[in-house]
Amino acid sequence: MPIITLTTDFGEKDHFAGAVKGAIYTELDTVRIVDISHSISPFHLTEAAYIIQNAYRSFPQGTIHIIGIDSELNPENKHIAVLLDGHYFICANNGIISMLTNEINPEKIVEINIHDRITTNFPVLDVFVKVACHIARGGTLEVIGKSITEIKELTGINPVVNGETNQIIGNVIYIDNYGNVICNISKTLFDDIGKGRNFKITARTAVFSTIYNRYSDAINFEIAKEKREEDGKKLALWNSSGYLELSIYKSNPSTVGSASSLFGLKYRDTITVNFE
Amino acid sequence: MPIITLTTDFGEKDHFAGAVKGAIYTELDTVRIVDISHSISPFHLTEAAYIIQNAYRSFPQGTIHIIGIDSELNPENKHIAVLLDGHYFICANNGIISMLTNEINPEKIVEINIHDRITTNFPVLDVFVKVACHIARGGTLEVIGKSITEIKELTGINPVVNGETNQIIGNVIYIDNYGNVICNISKTLFDDIGKGRNFKITARTAVFSTIYNRYSDAINFEIAKEKREEDGKKLALWNSSGYLELSIYKSNPSTVGSASSLFGLKYRDTITVNFE
Amino acid sequence: MPIITLTTDFGEKDHFAGAVKGAIYTELDTVRIVDISHSISPFHLTEAAYIIQNAYRSFPQGTIHIIGIDSELNPENKHIAVLLDGHYFICANNGIISMLTNEINPEKIVEINIHDRITTNFPVLDVFVKVACHIARGGTLEVIGKSITEIKELTGINPVVNGETNQIIGNVIYIDNYGNVICNISKTLFDDIGKGRNFKITARTAVFSTIYNRYSDAINFEIAKEKREEDGKKLALWNSSGYLELSIYKSNPSTVGSASSLFGLKYRDTITVNFE
Repeated sequence: MPIITLTTDFGEKDHFAGAVKGAIYTELDTVRIVDISHSISPFHLTEAAYIIQNAYRSFPQGTIHIIGIDSELNPENKHIAVLLDGHYFICANNGIISMLTNEINPEKIVEINIHDRITTNFPVLDVFVKVACHIARGGTLEVIGKSITEIKELTGINPVVNGETNQIIGNVIYIDNYGNVICNISKTLFDDIGKGRNFKITARTAVFSTIYNRYSDAINFEIAKEKREEDGKKLALWNSSGYLELSIYKSNPSTVGSASSLFGLKYRDTITVNFE
Repeated sequence: MPIITLTTDFGEKDHFAGAVKGAIYTELDTVRIVDISHSISPFHLTEAAYIIQNAYRSFPQGTIHIIGIDSELNPENKHIAVLLDGHYFICANNGIISMLTNEINPEKIVEINIHDRITTNFPVLDVFVKVACHIARGGTLEVIGKSITEIKELTGINPVVNGETNQIIGNVIYIDNYGNVICNISKTLFDDIGKGRNFKITARTAVFSTIYNRYSDAINFEIAKEKREEDGKKLALWNSSGYLELSIYKSNPSTVGSASSLFGLKYRDTITVNFE
Repeated sequence: MPIITLTTDFGEKDHFAGAVKGAIYTELDTVRIVDISHSISPFHLTEAAYIIQNAYRSFPQGTIHIIGIDSELNPENKHIAVLLDGHYFICANNGIISMLTNEINPEKIVEINIHDRITTNFPVLDVFVKVACHIARGGTLEVIGKSITEIKELTGINPVVNGETNQIIGNVIYIDNYGNVICNISKTLFDDIGKGRNFKITARTAVFSTIYNRYSDAINFEIAKEKREEDGKKLALWNSSGYLELSIYKSNPSTVGSASSLFGLKYRDTITVNFE
């Protein structure tokens, strides 16, 4: 029996996530349910897109991912189920999986049409659970929707390269639990454009000319520990998702501060890479 | 094997919820454990009552719900196990399930008396887990407690109707993750008293004369998107739990604000419905 | 199939914990995964040590505990797997399980050496999951690491007894969800040193001369409820983990305040016990 994952903006306190799990178990006794996150900022599609993109690949092929964010059905917000990279995604057609479709073409997309008799203001419980359980039982997408070929794109999540191809202008797309600042510039794009040239990364007043592969690479362990000034050291690195990340070594946002607070960077702020 | 759910004020950080799960799995290999919420405000019985009321119905019959809030045993706070609506509830007799018993009569209530040799300051771990596993193995309530007929009522969770039956005075009972304000006036009560008359809802300075069934119903999708002023639109609706909810369309409490912050409403504040 | 638990500082929002669960289920279909906590303060080893110490004992023998905090591999931070008290712990050799090894000698410790071809900045996903699944399948520690005999100690978590053995100086090691202040003085140590003598506990301006066994023991239930001044009553007690805890009866940190806020106590602050 496959796994059903949940990624929502329900928060940790309300009854919503618990109710959804109860409904899934009521339909399917032996399914496994995994919470990816319920703490997406309310209605924040980019955050949800970033999180689902980075989590789904670790799950087995055939896993069913419910994305419960901005999911109320209305004329401009239809429900879809998508088969992509061997995984199923059930969500509203609001652009949330366009970070995935940027890289990989979906194998199948259907617009869910089982709503005939369902009017609801809790569509994750009343619609997405039904679709997920249908797929988990081996049902096909055609039974619960009609095939479509295009889905909505999320704007503002792609960086811009200038005409001379010596500059990439990206944006902050996510601030993680450590206050690390994640930017929409991927290593693939950076290498394509940079072709090994020297570079300068500018984010407000912070400037970087090296991108590390791991946090510890920024530390010189040959210097005795008490002489190093490693805690609080600022660094740029390729994070485990392949994106450019600005970080403070061993930061704690609620005590010593973090990249986000110390560099004054927040969601959508500009990060510029200039190549020589 | 049935499901055991957990609803507590343990928070997300401490070891309490993890320890409880370990203890359940130690007794029962194959049970499924579902977190409903561990983020109830400490000792906040009304919040817990609201959450368990709205979550339990989605679970299969026979599910066992542990409610770990204000659960220390003392002469005024006995432990009970209740069979109600086909579900088992294990909690302190502190009024927490009186929102349920307002609507449905319990089939059976026992005062738990397995404490003879257990003195503990972690009763969820040391008592509730034992009771839950006993029930999950098919044991009867009589074995772990003595039958009682009445349980404690929670005060202040019921709205008041005036003598002329043209006014309902309710209170805020919950603020959800989106900052929506939920009030103890149910659609059933509203329809019973209102009988289709026009009405005015007053909550501090905010006034409403329509109650929608879904958030999107407040939006006119025939107007072009760029001309609509939908985000930040205030609305009253019947939420998925059947209660009156005051909301801001697509609110985010930490950025644009929410019904709670914008209307200045907090727990216990008065919400008045006047019928013509 | 055993249980794998997760204790990390990943937070509730990011994709890290979800990705780790996906990777475990990809390797092992039938394992059970339990979250102990993902809300440890970033890089806070003492918090993690306190939480894992208090959670692990409730799990069945043979449970595998992944501790994902400060886990990046570097010359000063090797990865270890430890068999202790019948449980397996997988973590960095950063002192995090020294609260356990203070009390119980490990049966086996290995330094993990499966990294030859793994360079990663997400070691919990790329290394710890592999080790955990190896152990869960019945594999031995020797296959994934080389035996070592000593592990790093965490400093500052042990109280100090003076030469006359009439004084214990302890420190705050944890503030729990209720704002209770937990100190590193255990009942065992207290009884050993105190030998039944009268005592005075001083924590900044707060003074205590009784230690209760349960919160309710501080309340006199023979006085009518409306005449008691129980809420907000300050008390010292032995908590469910066997440590000295300073508490406010039924405190809520975000409303009426808590021991931590009212006594002005925070992590590492001194708590002194003087015996007569």
